[in-house]
Amino acid sequence: MTYCLAAVVDEGIVFASDSRTNAGVDHVSTYRKMHTFAWPGERVFVLLSAGNLATTQSVLRAIERDLDQGAETSLASVARMDEAAEYLGGLSVERQHQATRSAGERSQVSVEATFILGGQIGDGEAEVYLVYPQGNFITVSSDQSFFQIGETKYGKPILDRIIAPDLSLESAGICALLSIDSTMRSNLSVGPPVELLLYPRDSLTLERRMNFEQDDPYFVALREAWSEGLKRLFEGLPRLPDAASSTI
Amino acid sequence: MTYCLAAVVDEGIVFASDSRTNAGVDHVSTYRKMHTFAWPGERVFVLLSAGNLATTQSVLRAIERDLDQGAETSLASVARMDEAAEYLGGLSVERQHQATRSAGERSQVSVEATFILGGQIGDGEAEVYLVYPQGNFITVSSDQSFFQIGETKYGKPILDRIIAPDLSLESAGICALLSIDSTMRSNLSVGPPVELLLYPRDSLTLERRMNFEQDDPYFVALREAWSEGLKRLFEGLPRLPDAASSTI
Repeated sequence: MTYCLAAVVDEGIVFASDSRTNAGVDHVSTYRKMHTFAWPGERVFVLLSAGNLATTQSVLRAIERDLDQGAETSLASVARMDEAAEYLGGLSVERQHQATRSAGERSQVSVEATFILGGQIGDGEAEVYLVYPQGNFITVSSDQSFFQIGETKYGKPILDRIIAPDLSLESAGICALLSIDSTMRSNLSVGPPVELLLYPRDSLTLERRMNFEQDDPYFVALREAWSEGLKRLFEGLPRLPDAASSTI
Repeated sequence: MTYCLAAVVDEGIVFASDSRTNAGVDHVSTYRKMHTFAWPGERVFVLLSAGNLATTQSVLRAIERDLDQGAETSLASVARMDEAAEYLGGLSVERQHQATRSAGERSQVSVEATFILGGQIGDGEAEVYLVYPQGNFITVSSDQSFFQIGETKYGKPILDRIIAPDLSLESAGICALLSIDSTMRSNLSVGPPVELLLYPRDSLTLERRMNFEQDDPYFVALREAWSEGLKRLFEGLPRLPDAASSTI
């Protein structure tokens, strides 16, 4: 499994991902799931991937091939973020079909892959798209300002409670880290290192990219502060009502 | 879906459950999933159920029939909690088989049900069992002091971080409420009212049972205190390291 997320706030976009891939408990390895393509000052893209690793790697190779060969449509040529999402969705579907054809009808392995694509092109808006295995895609709304892919449930409550448009980019980054940490605690198929990228709106550079191993001093301090703080917060919560008031 | 949980702490056992059942978005209704059987001073049982509603209701009717008819094996006759779990597992398997036979092989509907059974018999230990659809069962350990059934993922991180043997029964109850609240926020298939039962070890009574509608004043105050506290806690967390220190 995998857990990646992107959250949009007024100041910019946060991207975060774990690095564990597995196909059964005997085949666990570490792969980065955050991929960046940047033409500083002109256009930047951040790609997060979940699903079949062969499909996601194949899509990445296709993106790079199109860039190398100066293809008519590539991340260097698209004029808007939604065109980039459409291009990505097309590549993804093509690669999945290819894998299915090669494997034949009998294969039980899912070759599906899901992507989050975010970034900004020139004067355009900084945007994030969720690209489904079917190649179609959606963007965030004012009520749904984050996307998650992979093992999404454990890390959702903290995003639901904290992510809001006026949250600072820095705080959104911390929230993303804690969302991934909660998931790693609860589910073995999501694991370190955790990658985090903060994209300040209109900066057109991808400079603030961080990588946290499990024992990274900051990550350790953050986890401890969070756990301690939760316990303190917990002790200050209103006590349960007397049996008399709410008992049925 | 459903979400129920039981957590064991030194002081006793907490049981909590939501009340939503659904079979598709058009068939949503409210059913209690917490069922109690008490002979005060002698023996008490709390049963939480998830899965096929017809199966769980059928199992409950069988339990009551065995009690009414003074059957050789019933909740009134078993001598230990594990016997009670075995009895429940047997009933559950029998009812599932019956439903499958009636429906024939072609039915695509799962008749499976999962139960949490907790309680105490006389001088025995206060215990909790998770009873699988196959009728077999497990109990808690020192490292796994809570069980969840149904839609379990959203509400797990808070239990992972807070539930510990030395937590007070009261606080474990609040933690259970927040775990269910987090799940209700994130998933429409889990809904109010929320039932909560605190069982103080060796009390052999089920007196502290509470029922919280979504707009219950205490439940509202708890949610607000939690959300506000999380936001405050969040603001006090260590800031992300400088780009220089952890950037790759």
